[in-house]
Amino acid sequence: MNAPAGKMTMEQLVSLCKRRGFVFQSSEVYGGIGGFWDYGPLGVELKNNIKRAWWKATVQERTDVVGLDAAIIMNPRAWKASGHIDTFADPMVDCRSCKRRFRTDELPSPESRVCPECGGALTEPRMFNLMFKTFVGPVEDEASVAYLRPETAQGIFVNFDNVLTTTRKKLPFGIAQIGKAFRNEITPGNFIFRDREFEQMELEYFVLPGTDEEWHQRWIDERFNWWLSLGIRRENLHLREHSADELSHYSKRTVDIEYDFPFAGFSEIEGIANRTDFDLARHSEFSGRSLSYFDEPSGEHITPYVIEPSMGVDRCFLTVLIDSYAEEEVRGEKRVLMRLKSELAPVKVAVLPLSRNEKLLPTAERVWELLRPHFMTQFDDAQSIGRRYRRQDEIGTPLCVTVDFETLEDGAVTVRDRDSMEQMRVPVSGLLDALREKLPSL
Amino acid sequence: MNAPAGKMTMEQLVSLCKRRGFVFQSSEVYGGIGGFWDYGPLGVELKNNIKRAWWKATVQERTDVVGLDAAIIMNPRAWKASGHIDTFADPMVDCRSCKRRFRTDELPSPESRVCPECGGALTEPRMFNLMFKTFVGPVEDEASVAYLRPETAQGIFVNFDNVLTTTRKKLPFGIAQIGKAFRNEITPGNFIFRDREFEQMELEYFVLPGTDEEWHQRWIDERFNWWLSLGIRRENLHLREHSADELSHYSKRTVDIEYDFPFAGFSEIEGIANRTDFDLARHSEFSGRSLSYFDEPSGEHITPYVIEPSMGVDRCFLTVLIDSYAEEEVRGEKRVLMRLKSELAPVKVAVLPLSRNEKLLPTAERVWELLRPHFMTQFDDAQSIGRRYRRQDEIGTPLCVTVDFETLEDGAVTVRDRDSMEQMRVPVSGLLDALREKLPSL
Repeated sequence: MNAPAGKMTMEQLVSLCKRRGFVFQSSEVYGGIGGFWDYGPLGVELKNNIKRAWWKATVQERTDVVGLDAAIIMNPRAWKASGHIDTFADPMVDCRSCKRRFRTDELPSPESRVCPECGGALTEPRMFNLMFKTFVGPVEDEASVAYLRPETAQGIFVNFDNVLTTTRKKLPFGIAQIGKAFRNEITPGNFIFRDREFEQMELEYFVLPGTDEEWHQRWIDERFNWWLSLGIRRENLHLREHSADELSHYSKRTVDIEYDFPFAGFSEIEGIANRTDFDLARHSEFSGRSLSYFDEPSGEHITPYVIEPSMGVDRCFLTVLIDSYAEEEVRGEKRVLMRLKSELAPVKVAVLPLSRNEKLLPTAERVWELLRPHFMTQFDDAQSIGRRYRRQDEIGTPLCVTVDFETLEDGAVTVRDRDSMEQMRVPVSGLLDALREKLPSL
Repeated sequence: MNAPAGKMTMEQLVSLCKRRGFVFQSSEVYGGIGGFWDYGPLGVELKNNIKRAWWKATVQERTDVVGLDAAIIMNPRAWKASGHIDTFADPMVDCRSCKRRFRTDELPSPESRVCPECGGALTEPRMFNLMFKTFVGPVEDEASVAYLRPETAQGIFVNFDNVLTTTRKKLPFGIAQIGKAFRNEITPGNFIFRDREFEQMELEYFVLPGTDEEWHQRWIDERFNWWLSLGIRRENLHLREHSADELSHYSKRTVDIEYDFPFAGFSEIEGIANRTDFDLARHSEFSGRSLSYFDEPSGEHITPYVIEPSMGVDRCFLTVLIDSYAEEEVRGEKRVLMRLKSELAPVKVAVLPLSRNEKLLPTAERVWELLRPHFMTQFDDAQSIGRRYRRQDEIGTPLCVTVDFETLEDGAVTVRDRDSMEQMRVPVSGLLDALREKLPSL
């Protein structure tokens, strides 16, 4: 019954996102701005639910992980230590005639060294740093340069000692963070798949050296299962081991979780890296402040190894939308629906009076009022009930509550399930409990 | 019994925040970076709870407001239209000798025109823009300049038409947003009271012109009550009307909600402005895209007026901490506690085995496991039970669950209330329900 993976095209996806208020082009009235996107009324709810689901699984339900929310702008010396100032760069060439700039690996024929736009001569490749630069304070000079973080991870590493001291955690333990990161990609693209402003969910999990390989494997399994728990179909997920020559400078081993995107094939949705002691050691060296851990059993100060599961909220958002999209035939008509897990659905319950009859409306509004403090709801009284069900199906609303003329007599309403389309009659007095049972909260 | 308002000093506050993991100086190991702060394990929970409380009251529970999450970096033409490029600036002077830069209104004697540092001559005042500047794309030139948003509001205005089309809302209705904003303050200070990177919660509420004054007053009342609902004491809040000469360029009338900060006296925690049709009209003019509303009753296209309640999460965070801080004398000893509303408390329940006895620990861990999926919890088995209660009091944990030797016999635990310190015995089988009743979720 479900649409097979890959059925939804990028065009359908972008159109659905815009038409229903999931994602808009940023500053669209001004022609947009490349690589930046805004989340609309439904998008912000879905995005917040994804973040809550991750936080609940990663922080709240675990005994060994605490949260953090560090600033986007950090002391720039942190980026010297992390290696980002020196190595987070793409090679670029400039055209000596038209002054346009190109990424070397995107030139049609890199060897010919001729501008693809005007035929002019190209410069030697130079490294172009992907960090957005700004200036802090009233003077724009070298001393005031700062960067928008290209990853949230470093905010965790520099706070290692603060968190250790205030929480009294013992190894192994982790610090989790959700927040914006920025990369000045030369060629952003594929909708929100590669954007310049995005949101990361990163966990830095600190372990005793020597236990790192085992913990790495445990986190690979753990994170793979988390994607399944979101409702993503197993056949659309796989693991990919980084080859030696693509490993980051800090990594001993990295495994990506990939999703089979209809427009790009299997592509990264999460990376799980063994960052070794690289970051803590570098920050200790560059700051002169020891970021070590006193290991009681051995009586020694050690620098922990770090396992890092790192993912982007925006790419997860895409994955969830694509994977839950389904088309069915119902009584000869096409039905489009999103089989979102109810925890992720932007709207949990829609309240639908059968018609705009003056007796039905006040009753329906009272039902709505009853539910609003507990669930994200919508009220819809426009057009036929069938069309309203379809509108809710399309945005993944798990339950519709219909108020009809019988309600005025028996005080009961019809609860309709999105996936099975089964309807059941529930007294308004027991409605809240009935819905709570079907809609676990995050 | 409560400490009177103003009892907590800034020094105590900063020290408590650092010691217990609420707020750390950003990049502290590198000597920090002025005006940037990181939220620690407890701080991130409190901050998230404040955001949820606002979202619930402003979006979820209302019938007339939807959410949005726009990008931090927008097309720079939006800032030309909004007036920020031309007017969001402070007057500054440079010293011709030592090259230092000063804000004119902070010079000890602005008339003397002599550098307070070296005695050199000062330049004429020039306007210094408070927006952080960056460059999007591979070339750093005038055409690629972009800004970090100094307010979230403009992301709402430029999406007015997108939201209207996708939600089919009728006036009056609002669009709410939570997100980071950045201001390159010349003199950040007072901890997180005035920082350069902060988080806003803004509502733009669109109304028919002519109904704006009435709606303005309704929102002033609504927002004042929201602060009371957070648990802030009425005597520490007041309203202040902006005088004609301090009104922003877009505002017809602005009223601030102020809080009596111990270190600064009554200071702004929220501004409620009547922005008129300034923003929508300017964006229509500058973009050439009509941001109007078709009013069915009159058959006319109109530009709505906007009422804007705008507040900062970080300042709210401070207010909540200060206002809930209390010192009591209990049996001759000082008890420090935070009387946080349970919805805001970073930790909802602490599970405390009476001792580290090998029979108690597994039982206590099972109780912890039972509660973790439902509440943010802590487990603490270090030091005496009295000290552990005090530690939880100090971070505002509403309930402690103690597992003692009797538990092994009767299957019941002791639930202790933070404020009354009353204890009651609850069977583990009914614990979840008992706690749920005392801890309403957001």
